[in-house]
Amino acid sequence: MRLAIDVMGGDQGPQAIIAGSARAAVEHPHLELILFGPHQQIAAELSRLPQPLAAATSRLVVRDAPDSVASSATAAWALRNGQATSMGHMLRSVAQGEAVAGVSAGSTAALVALARREVGMIEGISRPAISTAIPARRGSRCYLLDLGANVDSPAHRLVDFALMGAAMAQCVDGTVQPRVALLNVGAEATKGSASVREADRLLRQRAGRDAFVYHGYAEGGDVFKGQLDVVVCDGFVGNAVLKASEGLTSMLVERVQMAFESRLSGRLASLLAKPVLKRLKQELDPVRYNGASLLGLRGIVVKSHGGAHADGFYYAIHRALQEVEHDLPARIAGRWQASSL
Amino acid sequence: MRLAIDVMGGDQGPQAIIAGSARAAVEHPHLELILFGPHQQIAAELSRLPQPLAAATSRLVVRDAPDSVASSATAAWALRNGQATSMGHMLRSVAQGEAVAGVSAGSTAALVALARREVGMIEGISRPAISTAIPARRGSRCYLLDLGANVDSPAHRLVDFALMGAAMAQCVDGTVQPRVALLNVGAEATKGSASVREADRLLRQRAGRDAFVYHGYAEGGDVFKGQLDVVVCDGFVGNAVLKASEGLTSMLVERVQMAFESRLSGRLASLLAKPVLKRLKQELDPVRYNGASLLGLRGIVVKSHGGAHADGFYYAIHRALQEVEHDLPARIAGRWQASSL
Repeated sequence: MRLAIDVMGGDQGPQAIIAGSARAAVEHPHLELILFGPHQQIAAELSRLPQPLAAATSRLVVRDAPDSVASSATAAWALRNGQATSMGHMLRSVAQGEAVAGVSAGSTAALVALARREVGMIEGISRPAISTAIPARRGSRCYLLDLGANVDSPAHRLVDFALMGAAMAQCVDGTVQPRVALLNVGAEATKGSASVREADRLLRQRAGRDAFVYHGYAEGGDVFKGQLDVVVCDGFVGNAVLKASEGLTSMLVERVQMAFESRLSGRLASLLAKPVLKRLKQELDPVRYNGASLLGLRGIVVKSHGGAHADGFYYAIHRALQEVEHDLPARIAGRWQASSL
Repeated sequence: MRLAIDVMGGDQGPQAIIAGSARAAVEHPHLELILFGPHQQIAAELSRLPQPLAAATSRLVVRDAPDSVASSATAAWALRNGQATSMGHMLRSVAQGEAVAGVSAGSTAALVALARREVGMIEGISRPAISTAIPARRGSRCYLLDLGANVDSPAHRLVDFALMGAAMAQCVDGTVQPRVALLNVGAEATKGSASVREADRLLRQRAGRDAFVYHGYAEGGDVFKGQLDVVVCDGFVGNAVLKASEGLTSMLVERVQMAFESRLSGRLASLLAKPVLKRLKQELDPVRYNGASLLGLRGIVVKSHGGAHADGFYYAIHRALQEVEHDLPARIAGRWQASSL
């Protein structure tokens, strides 16, 4: 089994991505990873890998791609210039069936635009949606989508998000009847934008036709309550909620740390508080630790957080492997066919 | 100086609101509070006030208003039936100049709709915006608006939010040159919805005409970084961000507590962790502890969090008094006049 990896575009440079890839290779003995990027740079990083990661280098195949997509690249730039980049090569490897899935930490806008063109969309779905699992109460998780691939989403696209999110929760996590809700400013039927109210009407009409339970409207805080499996919103809203949550989590962890340090002696604080806080921060940083899935494509593409270190990139690969195991694109395509009958 | 208080509509019932009002009366010896609601119920609560709150009852004036607005009331319901409610009476007291400001913990949708009709808008502003101060890094705060009074805000309304937010940071907090940003899905000029990009263009055109610094785009996480004084967005987005932040904060505080309790003995945990966590939770719960301002009205109206206990309602009154002290509506009206010249 082969995965395609774009080694460029992450904030931590190729080193973190290559180390994360090596960890995946060590843990999955039948996995081969094709590393797309500047040959010499990758070779140099590979030669520096410590044991036990170095033992996996034979299954890390270098494929020279000297050009790369800047982390600030726009969709328009990528569509004009992206073909020859490491990201473009990685996506074609997925499109041509050489690799079963692809992972990149590069520009989200570029990745969405290029993936749509190179990998193509499932029939009936016009644009990819981005989703990640947000950690919620009682150890549960809630898929939030879209996270920024689509702004100003019309009602029918919000319905697509609901179907794709439910398919993911069902196939990948084995949730038999995912609980799906539509993000709104309140639970009342008269509230919200026209597209959200229309999407609500469309989802109610579908009741019984889909293998998920539509719960109606949810508010921002419901994402974390552990009572929903999928929360659907326009990409502008989802992006704002996700990034606010990341920013708030890091501020809160910092404040908790400061509060304890001011009350406890330095030694006691480091013994008691630091390990707890470190684990907490990791658990709660959703994209950094899970990767975000591009849904609606004919192939599997996962976006790692741009700021991910080796472990974060490893988790994005892990996410891609889960989607491969459950053949997610085929399952989503099957839903669309069934739904259009 | 008189304030008008709607004692109905809060999740904790009139008791919390009356206790919060009594605390404000105790702390401000020249303040009189007019309590609008069912006479007998208020009188019963007043007679049960403990000392030192009971000492202020002579400055808590009961004004009978038997009808009330349900916490789930819609704007349409309020416009049809709201006139005779405690909320309607409270707003008319502000509109007629009997009270210098009004506070309610009732339905936001009803309060916005009724306040617009009863108190009226500043010339040039079509609808109220809701804003609250979000706690950010280094003890700073960031005003986020709109929080849900407006969905699908066109560009000119986002510009209004920027001007009102800046006026509030300047007048109430004394920030000489507030740093104002527009929430978007990324910092690049090509990203975002059409209305956000148009608002960005309009705000850049105004450069130098306003007494604030326009910083361009911000992402969701920037609200908490302590480098911005005002972040502007559509009410749907702001509502989702605010409610997600509330939900995340309470989940995080719970998790930190559980993490410490599992590592520390019960006694040590309660001694060390609980007081720190309690203070933290209070500091970080913005609306519950600060109240949210309705901006753009001819008078001062503050919305207390529906779930606020007595202290939370007291802080909402405190917020109203700060706006009275700086004559916020007149300052905003002045900006609009200057701006339309």
